[in-house]
Amino acid sequence: MRVLLTGFEPFGGETINPSWLAARALDGERIGGAMIVACELPCVFDAALQALDSALADCDPMLVIALGQAAGRCDLSFERVAVNLDDARIPDNAGAQPIDRSVIAGAPAAHFGTLPVKAIVATLRQQGIPASLSMSAGSFVCNHLFFGLMHRLAARPGVRGGFVHLPLLPEQAARHPGQPSLPLATMVEGLRVAIEVALATREDLRVAGGEIA
Amino acid sequence: MRVLLTGFEPFGGETINPSWLAARALDGERIGGAMIVACELPCVFDAALQALDSALADCDPMLVIALGQAAGRCDLSFERVAVNLDDARIPDNAGAQPIDRSVIAGAPAAHFGTLPVKAIVATLRQQGIPASLSMSAGSFVCNHLFFGLMHRLAARPGVRGGFVHLPLLPEQAARHPGQPSLPLATMVEGLRVAIEVALATREDLRVAGGEIA
Amino acid sequence: MRVLLTGFEPFGGETINPSWLAARALDGERIGGAMIVACELPCVFDAALQALDSALADCDPMLVIALGQAAGRCDLSFERVAVNLDDARIPDNAGAQPIDRSVIAGAPAAHFGTLPVKAIVATLRQQGIPASLSMSAGSFVCNHLFFGLMHRLAARPGVRGGFVHLPLLPEQAARHPGQPSLPLATMVEGLRVAIEVALATREDLRVAGGEIA
Amino acid sequence: MRVLLTGFEPFGGETINPSWLAARALDGERIGGAMIVACELPCVFDAALQALDSALADCDPMLVIALGQAAGRCDLSFERVAVNLDDARIPDNAGAQPIDRSVIAGAPAAHFGTLPVKAIVATLRQQGIPASLSMSAGSFVCNHLFFGLMHRLAARPGVRGGFVHLPLLPEQAARHPGQPSLPLATMVEGLRVAIEVALATREDLRVAGGEIA
Repeated sequence: MRVLLTGFEPFGGETINPSWLAARALDGERIGGAMIVACELPCVFDAALQALDSALADCDPMLVIALGQAAGRCDLSFERVAVNLDDARIPDNAGAQPIDRSVIAGAPAAHFGTLPVKAIVATLRQQGIPASLSMSAGSFVCNHLFFGLMHRLAARPGVRGGFVHLPLLPEQAARHPGQPSLPLATMVEGLRVAIEVALATREDLRVAGGEIA
Repeated sequence: MRVLLTGFEPFGGETINPSWLAARALDGERIGGAMIVACELPCVFDAALQALDSALADCDPMLVIALGQAAGRCDLSFERVAVNLDDARIPDNAGAQPIDRSVIAGAPAAHFGTLPVKAIVATLRQQGIPASLSMSAGSFVCNHLFFGLMHRLAARPGVRGGFVHLPLLPEQAARHPGQPSLPLATMVEGLRVAIEVALATREDLRVAGGEIA
Repeated sequence: MRVLLTGFEPFGGETINPSWLAARALDGERIGGAMIVACELPCVFDAALQALDSALADCDPMLVIALGQAAGRCDLSFERVAVNLDDARIPDNAGAQPIDRSVIAGAPAAHFGTLPVKAIVATLRQQGIPASLSMSAGSFVCNHLFFGLMHRLAARPGVRGGFVHLPLLPEQAARHPGQPSLPLATMVEGLRVAIEVALATREDLRVAGGEIA
Repeated sequence: MRVLLTGFEPFGGETINPSWLAARALDGERIGGAMIVACELPCVFDAALQALDSALADCDPMLVIALGQAAGRCDLSFERVAVNLDDARIPDNAGAQPIDRSVIAGAPAAHFGTLPVKAIVATLRQQGIPASLSMSAGSFVCNHLFFGLMHRLAARPGVRGGFVHLPLLPEQAARHPGQPSLPLATMVEGLRVAIEVALATREDLRVAGGEIA
């Protein structure tokens, strides 16, 4: 029983990316009876999904959690919906900057994540780890990967998946005054809890968690 | 040739809603050769869509722009995607608070708006009116209406539609210190421009406008 | 009976400054029995105070309200305290960038403004105009002018004075997405009310208005 | 050679206060040749200053750093100026809510802190710890203590002092979604560095660090 945990290489002028550091920190760990397999993905449209395909084939996971960096957010942010739209505000690490194209032509406009995100967020908050839900993963490589992942999992009914945006690390925020951050240990502990809850929870909590706008 | 412009009744403790005030201000006006027809909708799940159906039947519009209030936003915010999810943080005006149900069972996970939102935002900014794109209309009655609208328009290929979130009015912000606002005249002028551009533009601009996260 | 209302020339890459536009709009108007005299000041350390001295001599006001632009603020923001510190994050309009020097050597560390700011903010909010109190006018030319003004007025016991930071105008915010704004008419009406209240109020309201941090 | 490090008891509905937890964690530690003496202060106007007087008498420090909690801030925030104003937005822990009174009647309008805050912030950022300068410590018990401290130190020329606002801890932010946080270990390490730099630095750096507004 394996859990695939993906993180991204650094982008946008950063030399580190908390998403890969957090995934790597959990690589090989056993959580809730499952083995964590970490995989670093390029921050590149299309190539990220090709690397995901290799990882899915190698790992044959029962659960996939993709991680990404989100400057400006202050907690572990569980994305609810992936949108079939690439619209890059900056070039990716290969220099491509797609504008208003589909992630996957002919695919649905969106896929919902299939993690029990309300149970996860409730448990994290009980354990003192800042966490929240998010209605948008943006339109850059993070959303691209999330959409590509959920589209693949739509064909694998037994495999659940989702996407978590992580804040900057303190050492990144030290160069970006005004940006919130959390240290790696808090992120890693939060992801450990998230994986445990995801593995243990069939039906998500029925509690209000939406946004007005 | 008619344009249907919908606004909501007040909600959340407010006594006014800029979305209806702005729609009403444009009612009967001719813009770009089309007649504006304004319609006030209840801030109530399902009932808002029933009222929309009546308005669509009465008006037979070629363009539909739905408006809503979004405290915390600072400009005219053009929504790009409607999600098939009702998750109410507060009860609606009829006391209902749906949690994690579909807007329309069996419908796609999302619909994209069909306004030329990049052309509209570019024109508004050139004319000195603050405007931006948004990747999420939330999961309350605004998104519910937007999704229901786009689902209906998916069956009417010649009719385009979208959703615009408006900031608080100054008189509302005066009771909510720290919230940005714009006066009604700025909103109304911005919507006039948006309708003109929507009517005159076939293909949207190909300019970067996405979000990283 | 005259009220001196000062505004600044544009700075920081802007071509307009709401503070001067608002002051100019009220120039020559009679409010509460007093004549408004507007004066545009250079956004230059020291030179702003020299221009203030000329204006004080010419105008012989009973009340002085200095205005400045504060990107990021969403309402009329009434400053409570001026600090004897110049620390410029960017060069002023003459290219000077003083670091950690006194506005006036040997003067006190700070001066409080002498407007009835709580009565003004309460009245503005009652009239639907967004307004708030502020504990810091920064350390650039705005604070420099405010400190210099209050230091001069400390020697003129019958003359009251203060400083109001104004948000960006919508046409400025249109080029700075994410920044709140208010239109000139709202600012002008708010300042008119502020001057009326200042002229009519001896003792400020005793209502809580502080900040925790 | 002793350094007095004060923290506050919890307030405002919290059960912990990072300022006391951080001070306590450093109690008894030797930093830069000095012994750290931690002292917990009541979050009560006047009583906080009485407790400070006892601590100053007992400890006879060469350096005093007072700490406080500031929800909403994302880093170690070094206050530059203390204002002679009590204006409480909420009651203190003894139920008092002073409005617009002096901290110390007859004292100056403000005192500047005397830590080399620019050298400290520069060092912290180099070491990957988020830190910034602040122009206002508010008008609640934190500013009250800071002003009272600097007024006392004005009579002890050899003793330097300052105030540092700390963000919420992650376990606090978990109950206040949307608030940034840092874990205790990051705060403690940052304060250790701050004390080292303060003890080793005579003249502060001459680098721009001000605010426009």
